Amino acid sequence: MGHRLADTSSPARLAAPDEGIGRDELALATRNHGLPLEALRYDVTPPGLHYVLTHYDIPYVPDDTAWRLSVTGRVQRPLHLDLADLKGFPQVTTRVTLECAGNGRALLTPRPVSQPWLVEAVGTAEWTGVPLRLLLAAAGVDADAVDVVFTGADHGVERGVEQDYQRSLPIDVATGTEPEVLVAHAMNGAPLPPQHGRPLRLIVPGWYGMAHVKWLREVAVTDAPFTGFQQSVAYRLRQESGEEGEPVTRIVPRALLVPPGFPDFMSRARVVRPGTVPLEGRAWSGRAPVTRVDVSTDAGRTWREAELEPDDGRPWAWRRWHFGWTAAEGEYELSARATDAEGHTQPLQQPWNRGGFANNLVQRVPVLCLAKEG
Amino acid sequence: MGHRLADTSSPARLAAPDEGIGRDELALATRNHGLPLEALRYDVTPPGLHYVLTHYDIPYVPDDTAWRLSVTGRVQRPLHLDLADLKGFPQVTTRVTLECAGNGRALLTPRPVSQPWLVEAVGTAEWTGVPLRLLLAAAGVDADAVDVVFTGADHGVERGVEQDYQRSLPIDVATGTEPEVLVAHAMNGAPLPPQHGRPLRLIVPGWYGMAHVKWLREVAVTDAPFTGFQQSVAYRLRQESGEEGEPVTRIVPRALLVPPGFPDFMSRARVVRPGTVPLEGRAWSGRAPVTRVDVSTDAGRTWREAELEPDDGRPWAWRRWHFGWTAAEGEYELSARATDAEGHTQPLQQPWNRGGFANNLVQRVPVLCLAKEG
Repeated sequence: MGHRLADTSSPARLAAPDEGIGRDELALATRNHGLPLEALRYDVTPPGLHYVLTHYDIPYVPDDTAWRLSVTGRVQRPLHLDLADLKGFPQVTTRVTLECAGNGRALLTPRPVSQPWLVEAVGTAEWTGVPLRLLLAAAGVDADAVDVVFTGADHGVERGVEQDYQRSLPIDVATGTEPEVLVAHAMNGAPLPPQHGRPLRLIVPGWYGMAHVKWLREVAVTDAPFTGFQQSVAYRLRQESGEEGEPVTRIVPRALLVPPGFPDFMSRARVVRPGTVPLEGRAWSGRAPVTRVDVSTDAGRTWREAELEPDDGRPWAWRRWHFGWTAAEGEYELSARATDAEGHTQPLQQPWNRGGFANNLVQRVPVLCLAKEG
Repeated sequence: MGHRLADTSSPARLAAPDEGIGRDELALATRNHGLPLEALRYDVTPPGLHYVLTHYDIPYVPDDTAWRLSVTGRVQRPLHLDLADLKGFPQVTTRVTLECAGNGRALLTPRPVSQPWLVEAVGTAEWTGVPLRLLLAAAGVDADAVDVVFTGADHGVERGVEQDYQRSLPIDVATGTEPEVLVAHAMNGAPLPPQHGRPLRLIVPGWYGMAHVKWLREVAVTDAPFTGFQQSVAYRLRQESGEEGEPVTRIVPRALLVPPGFPDFMSRARVVRPGTVPLEGRAWSGRAPVTRVDVSTDAGRTWREAELEPDDGRPWAWRRWHFGWTAAEGEYELSARATDAEGHTQPLQQPWNRGGFANNLVQRVPVLCLAKEG
């Protein structure tokens, strides 16, 4: 009777009714972090405020110059590149809004037990690197290529499976230009912070965070579909655990508002005083450009259109919106709702699946408007 | 019957037995974040990995040059300084380990309901700024000075009290040199990140985080003891809610180890394989230099001394330690325990108070050592 991985790694499960957040979920919440919602004010999220989700440990990389990226598999000229080699390729900088596929999970009923996000697993950065299509062209992709598999240096066990973090993209996505996938070495003009993949990560504009493999060390072209854990077991939309499920891919639309006024420390509930309360926020979609944001100040009973600012030629970044609200004494629930050019919008009832993925239920922000100071 | 702050702000309380982490605690945990423990490997914590605790919202300061710091109250020459003025004073850079006074709170029984830290609310940075004693000397402190009150730009409500965040130091601490208090404008050689107080914060080496007032806008000398909320209501060590309580001041000793091997995603439990497993970590105390770290690999039954690295003349920063462990197949619980030059050490049973402050119970890290790969 040896000690096995199954002794420490348990299957996915749903929380029981009224089960509070457990110690294991809390351990994830204190490591990983969201965007404090007041930081939606910045066009580009300052370092340390962008959301972070790490499956295992953040690899310790004391010397970037020793890092190598391999481009292997079904290619004619395998590549082994260091950072200097990568910087010799044409460089692109793209502003991208990244969101965790599990954003909103902790608000679901029943609650899938995993990283317990509320609504704040998002951030926007300027990512600089080499278009992946140029690396694949340099390697010469074979005609029978199907998938491209990306391997990170992060190692752990998940639901009993020991693994390096791995995800794949179909060859047409990997070599496409809408979006143009990057192998990035810089975030907001500086080398990647350790928690964002130093020294190299993938950036797949418009896709949820699981696709943006961090601590990237291998790009392998395959002639068969990749069926690794993060592709076939995790990150699937399932109602029942036995289903194959649809894969999680691009980001569905979401709008968030900067909670107005000031907070109560413990409840994070908001307090304003009567008068003009400017509301602002951001909206994004990885499916199509956001074309409309509506705001409700009465718990979703009525909606009015917000003013959406131009995208300034940055289709993969969130757009700012604002809305004038005149508050009178009372209690309110504020919401914002994004719609994109393909007609996708945010549901008012929870979209539910066992993983708690791609859940874009509208945000609800309770606000107390005090009596006038007298 | 008007709407009042009391409608949104409730009194401090203890969690019921077996009460899971609630929605309000989770909202704090997803905003604030700890140091991922593998980042204990860095002498100086990289940006975004240092712990962050914000009582209210992070103020939005789009233009640092418009910021003013007032030095007022019982002084002969009130000062109104901008950043350029402050940089005209002599500059000091000090490496300081900062820890939240509530670190460890979520592990307590019963659990005080507040920011639910496990053990990771710590970080070490190089802070650059002006010694506070030089600013006070320039202002000319009156002979009857008692306290110095520091006011931040962060505003909120806490336990029913609307407030700007304010803390004080006794005049002898504010003008002392052991530690030397700084008004800091840079962290690790760069302007402060927003979440660390941009553009100005107080640094009080050796004291828990509540003393290091962020977004600092006023320094006011008083001729009577300061009795504001954060000084007299919060941050007191109390067994019963009616007690006056001792104030929370300097950091008690703590050692943390880098959890070895690799983690399970969900439980964060650690997995190693048989053989040599180097252990390392950090130890600190704000009371006196750390002089000893002991390690247990058998759930605290036996302890052996770790090798403590020199402090390199940085008395306010954590010290690195390491320890050789040879793991055989089985289950373990690892702990480390710091002792300082004044004989303070970490308890093996929880030190408990209603706020969950200054709780330095030893860390416990479950580790599974697998059978040899066959």
